[in-house]
Amino acid sequence: MKNDKKLVQDITSMDVDFAKWYTDICKKADLIDYSSVKGCMIIRPYGYAIWENIQKILDTRFKELGHENVYMPLFIPESLLQKEKDHVEGFAPEVAWVTHGGSEELPERLCVRPTSETLFCEHYANIIRSWRDLPKLYNQWCSVVRWEKTTRPFLRSREFLWQEGHTMHATEEEARAETVQMLNVYADFHEKDLAIPVIKGAKTPSDKFAGAEDTYCIEAMMHDGKALQAGTSHYFGDGFARAFDIQYADQTNQLRYPHQTSWGVTTRMIGGIIMTHGDDNGLVLPPAVAPIQVVVVPAAMHKEGVLEANRALTDRIRAAGYRVKLDDTDNSPGWKFAEYEMKGVPVRVELGPRDIEAGQCVLVTRYNMEKTVVKLDEIEAVLAEKMTEIRDGMYQKALENRERRTFDCASLDEIKETLAEHGDSFIRAMWCGEEECEDKVKELTGVGSRCIPFEQKHISDVCVCCGKPAKHMVYWGIAY
Amino acid sequence: MKNDKKLVQDITSMDVDFAKWYTDICKKADLIDYSSVKGCMIIRPYGYAIWENIQKILDTRFKELGHENVYMPLFIPESLLQKEKDHVEGFAPEVAWVTHGGSEELPERLCVRPTSETLFCEHYANIIRSWRDLPKLYNQWCSVVRWEKTTRPFLRSREFLWQEGHTMHATEEEARAETVQMLNVYADFHEKDLAIPVIKGAKTPSDKFAGAEDTYCIEAMMHDGKALQAGTSHYFGDGFARAFDIQYADQTNQLRYPHQTSWGVTTRMIGGIIMTHGDDNGLVLPPAVAPIQVVVVPAAMHKEGVLEANRALTDRIRAAGYRVKLDDTDNSPGWKFAEYEMKGVPVRVELGPRDIEAGQCVLVTRYNMEKTVVKLDEIEAVLAEKMTEIRDGMYQKALENRERRTFDCASLDEIKETLAEHGDSFIRAMWCGEEECEDKVKELTGVGSRCIPFEQKHISDVCVCCGKPAKHMVYWGIAY
Repeated sequence: MKNDKKLVQDITSMDVDFAKWYTDICKKADLIDYSSVKGCMIIRPYGYAIWENIQKILDTRFKELGHENVYMPLFIPESLLQKEKDHVEGFAPEVAWVTHGGSEELPERLCVRPTSETLFCEHYANIIRSWRDLPKLYNQWCSVVRWEKTTRPFLRSREFLWQEGHTMHATEEEARAETVQMLNVYADFHEKDLAIPVIKGAKTPSDKFAGAEDTYCIEAMMHDGKALQAGTSHYFGDGFARAFDIQYADQTNQLRYPHQTSWGVTTRMIGGIIMTHGDDNGLVLPPAVAPIQVVVVPAAMHKEGVLEANRALTDRIRAAGYRVKLDDTDNSPGWKFAEYEMKGVPVRVELGPRDIEAGQCVLVTRYNMEKTVVKLDEIEAVLAEKMTEIRDGMYQKALENRERRTFDCASLDEIKETLAEHGDSFIRAMWCGEEECEDKVKELTGVGSRCIPFEQKHISDVCVCCGKPAKHMVYWGIAY
Repeated sequence: MKNDKKLVQDITSMDVDFAKWYTDICKKADLIDYSSVKGCMIIRPYGYAIWENIQKILDTRFKELGHENVYMPLFIPESLLQKEKDHVEGFAPEVAWVTHGGSEELPERLCVRPTSETLFCEHYANIIRSWRDLPKLYNQWCSVVRWEKTTRPFLRSREFLWQEGHTMHATEEEARAETVQMLNVYADFHEKDLAIPVIKGAKTPSDKFAGAEDTYCIEAMMHDGKALQAGTSHYFGDGFARAFDIQYADQTNQLRYPHQTSWGVTTRMIGGIIMTHGDDNGLVLPPAVAPIQVVVVPAAMHKEGVLEANRALTDRIRAAGYRVKLDDTDNSPGWKFAEYEMKGVPVRVELGPRDIEAGQCVLVTRYNMEKTVVKLDEIEAVLAEKMTEIRDGMYQKALENRERRTFDCASLDEIKETLAEHGDSFIRAMWCGEEECEDKVKELTGVGSRCIPFEQKHISDVCVCCGKPAKHMVYWGIAY
């Protein structure tokens, strides 16, 4: 039984319904499945393999910078969550509560961790005594739970996978340097490995993490012009240290409060990859995290010598260090093409009897569907070049989309007109720093503040909303 | 400020109080910490690094055998847990229940997964259609929760980390082969990598996993003569498939129920390592999973050239592929010796001015404290030999302990006398197969059935309890 090519290609066009296109890819590329657990998702092998590749790259970078992995409990007692006032106010409305163990009611409710600052702080209070114990650079890979009302695969689900770094430092300076360093790790990973251009900046005060002094973020633009917050890094000052009574003796034996950071990225990044690079034929994966980097598809597979030649080529590609798969199933080449396009495999290699005779193969790069005829004995060198080209090309395409959809505006009317003409976009406009104006911009134009970029641009002297002197240039947009 | 050697060595002797010795090591070797979350533990960097090494080795083996990783939701709706009758009866009394999301009461309680058979089955019902979809070989690394009354670090805690493999096969034969294959992977890992000898066998019917047709296990003997169940592998038949309506069309287009397995090992293995290999100076780690395999300790560190020579040696050892640490802190060599003995580092290398002059270093193997003088230019070759020697020596030591404490008994009186004379031991004795006798042996002698070993030995013709014809030889012991 040969499968039909149309069968796998049958997804909604992104121009018709972007949201439907997105969930179609999640399902048809075998990334996720739904279950009877409302708001949670099953991450299927192909989706999870992307996450494993992300983990490997980031975990290596974290460790190179001196971070160590730990594991904290899944639960937080209600009284512990309440120790830092801003923090509990931010999270209490959206946590899942465990009230019973077996048939017994618990003496105190436990929430399923929405984030673990409180647990890390309790532990730090136990183990930090002296300046010799600092810095503490801990990270944890785990799942967290936030009881969201509306959910979407990868982008917003009641449970998601992430890493949360939690560090303690002797001085504010050191802690602030860590906060920025980890934001840079995230930005670098997005740009170099995921081929997603990002804007680095600070959240406005109203948008900071619950309990943080400063929240930095990276913001990416999706294909539809909307913004995705792709990673955050927080500087906490010594607020939690005071609430949890964490003190260290400095070199002169004086007791001091350490300074704290936390930073995290989540499975949401997979959503970012889909919405940055995907197209109407499916997923497009950056080589660094693709579970299969090269798929080898034989043509006229049952002719003598063809399968053997394809196997030999696959072995060579594997030996060169690539994640490669030979598809020697009975499905037609056309069906296979569609299948691996849907799955976003960066490179397809086709090898048939005539190619073998000519000592060549055909190489197709997924992101631009460009065909190259390659001499068989040059395959390793060409693949190495192509992988760099693919990453660069994908990055450039995404950057062009963002630049085409980024506009400088000096008035609310200009913002409204720009959005009416160009659809969802990034708006760069000046802001006075008042929450009232921030809210008003959103209310009147629809775009909210995404971040105060580190790289500022002078657009005008005055706030786009109230006309008073401007403090910052802000990126505004519609967020996922 | 130099630390005192006694400070780190101060743990209870195992002969005085084995349980206290165990928890002392957990704390003093920096493996765990407690938190305000009762019954849960914090796995600290040194403990978590052991787990990461375990994961790496096992995950590679699972994948070589064709398994793929997935991620299932943390929660199971009550109605889903109830679909398989035996399963819910086994687990419902010990699950944690989530009843509220934020301030709202949930329409249906969710339990925090104690194991994920039900979630996997629900998913398999969605994705298995034809014989072409089989086998499905899925695995997941995650944490699970069981509301235990009494808890001990690694051995029994309300939350623990594990992997759970869940597979579906077209035939009983294939599923049974998978069950045994994975038990063998666990046994092999314990014996070769953890240097822990294990007995492979089947659980008696009363001790099977909730819902399983057969449960296989590996049982290890701890230093104190007690038994640790170190890994289990279950064959389910098609019971869950029927309960969850999972059917596939075979090659003749007939609908059939697939056959299922599950298998798991947990952070409990770290407890097994401690109690198999540890001594009164602390932890003793097998090289395969030790976070630090070699520690380099300079002698007379501040003399000219010593630190440089130690650094060069450390680099050589690292280049040879070992996880190595140079301790160049101001602590005294004596303090360092005690510290890394407590942490169970397999090999210590000492290098001082006289060694440098003689072109040699001193190598001390933790498990037997044997000293070897090694020529510096032979360090790589000697380390390679030593690592094998250490694993073999640790295995042999553990095996001798088990053999010394294993006795064949032909009557209940003989069991009682043996235990009275030798303390906690493994008893090999015949059994008729009746649960009544199994219970009676435990009640009258204190030892419960651990497993029916694959490798049977004929001790007598009749059941040790009732005197009727015997069906199996059983290992009896006191379990952790």
